[in-house]
Amino acid sequence: MDVCLIGAGNLATQLGLALTEKGHKVVQIWSRTASSAAELASKLECPYTTEISLIYAGADVYIIAVSDQAIEEVLGMRSWGSALVVHTAGSIPMDILAPYCTNFGVFYPFQTFTAAKTVDFDRIPVCIEASTPQNLEFLSILAHSLSQNIRIVDSVQRQQIHLAAVFVCNFVNHLYSIGEELLLEKGLDFDLLKPLILETADKMVAHSPQSSQTGPAVRNDTNVINKHLAMLADHPDLKNIYALVSERIIQKHK
Amino acid sequence: MDVCLIGAGNLATQLGLALTEKGHKVVQIWSRTASSAAELASKLECPYTTEISLIYAGADVYIIAVSDQAIEEVLGMRSWGSALVVHTAGSIPMDILAPYCTNFGVFYPFQTFTAAKTVDFDRIPVCIEASTPQNLEFLSILAHSLSQNIRIVDSVQRQQIHLAAVFVCNFVNHLYSIGEELLLEKGLDFDLLKPLILETADKMVAHSPQSSQTGPAVRNDTNVINKHLAMLADHPDLKNIYALVSERIIQKHK
Repeated sequence: MDVCLIGAGNLATQLGLALTEKGHKVVQIWSRTASSAAELASKLECPYTTEISLIYAGADVYIIAVSDQAIEEVLGMRSWGSALVVHTAGSIPMDILAPYCTNFGVFYPFQTFTAAKTVDFDRIPVCIEASTPQNLEFLSILAHSLSQNIRIVDSVQRQQIHLAAVFVCNFVNHLYSIGEELLLEKGLDFDLLKPLILETADKMVAHSPQSSQTGPAVRNDTNVINKHLAMLADHPDLKNIYALVSERIIQKHK
Repeated sequence: MDVCLIGAGNLATQLGLALTEKGHKVVQIWSRTASSAAELASKLECPYTTEISLIYAGADVYIIAVSDQAIEEVLGMRSWGSALVVHTAGSIPMDILAPYCTNFGVFYPFQTFTAAKTVDFDRIPVCIEASTPQNLEFLSILAHSLSQNIRIVDSVQRQQIHLAAVFVCNFVNHLYSIGEELLLEKGLDFDLLKPLILETADKMVAHSPQSSQTGPAVRNDTNVINKHLAMLADHPDLKNIYALVSERIIQKHK
C-alpha cells in the first residue's frame, strides 16, 4: 500500500521503518520541522515536504502521527477529500476527524516508542477503529501486515487503554527512576536493580500481577512500612507515594 | 559446603535448589511448619525437622530464611556456639545476630522469589556482609558459587536497596495490577498490556529510566492529565496516585 506519513517523530519513525520492511511504500513524509522530515526521509528513501499543501493526493492512507495537540491543526491545513485519514493517538476520540474527512479511522500501535530503539512490530497490539466497515477492513489488512496482534476497539476503550498505559509504562518507568535515585544516595548503582526489574516484568507474563504481589504492604508488615517511611523523611514526595501505594495494596489484598 | 536451611518458604526453596545444583549439600531443613519442611526436604532429598533443638551441629553455615519478624525468635530458640549464622533479610541490620552468635553475617540474594517459578541465580546480585574478614571471605566463596554478581554492602546500604526494591518491584507490580483492573472495567484483557510492560522493563537495560521517561506528565500535557483525572473520578485512590506520581515526574523533568 502507498502510505503518506504526517509526522516524523518516534512513532512515525518506527511505523515508517516497519511499513517499509513489510513491503509497503511510504510515498511521502510531511513534518513541520525540516530536519526531522529529512532525517526520516533519508531512512525510508522517500520524498518529504514541510508544506502541507504539497502533500500528494492519491496515497492509500494518510497516517497522522503528530502530538495530540497538533492533530486538529494539521487536519485543518488541507482538504482531504475522500482520502482515508487515520490518527495514531491513544487518548483522542476518532470523531475528531469527522469534520475534516469522509473516510477516517484510528491506527493505534500500543507500545512505547523511542527513536533510538527499533521495536519489533510483530507482537505489538495494534488497536484499530474506523468510520465504515470498508475502512475497518482496509485498516485490518494494513495492521495484519505488521502485527499478529490486532484489536478492534472503540474510542472509549482506547482511552482506557491509554490510561492503563500511563500506569504500567510511564509511572512504572518513574518508579525505576526513583529506585535509581535512592541507590545513588548511598553510593550504589542502578545496575543492581536490573535483574529484579526484569524478573518483576517477566513474572506477569505467566502469573497475574494480583497473585504475584510481594513486599511489606501485601503482608501488612507495619514494622517495615514504618521503617521505610522514616527512611524517606527527607523526601516528602516519595514518602507520600510510598504511603499511598502501600495503602492501596493493603486494601486490595485484605 | 554443608548448609543448614532454617526456613522453607520461597527464598529457602530457591536457595536450596540453587545450592544443591551447584554441588553444595543441604544437610538439613528446619521449619516450624512440618508440611513446608517435608515438601522442601523431598525436593532436596535431605532430612528435615520441626524441632530446632534437633538441628545438627557441624554445618558450615546456617542460613536463616524466615520472615523478618521470626528471625530473633528463631535465633533465641537454640545456642549457636561458634557456627557461622547468616540471615537473608534486606531490611534487618546484621547486628541483630550479634547477641546470639559469635560468627555471623548476611547473605541477601536480591530478587523476588515465588515458590512456583524457578529463578536463575547466575545473574542475581548477592549482597553480603559479615562480622569478620574470614566470615566475609567464606560468604564470598559461597555467593560466587551461585552468582557472578556479588556485592559487599553494609546494613545501611542493604536497607536502602530493600527500600528501592519496594518501589521497582512491589509497587511496579501493583501498577501492573491497576492496569489490569482498568482494562477489565471496559471488557479488555491484561494480555494487551504485556508487550508494553516488557518493553518498558527491557528499555532500561540500555537506557537510564530518567532519559526514557515518556507520557503526558513528562510533556507537562495538562489536557491529557486532566482528562485522565476525570476518568478516575470513581476511583479516588487511583486518582490520588495518578496526581502524585504525575506531579513528581513534572517536578523532576522541568
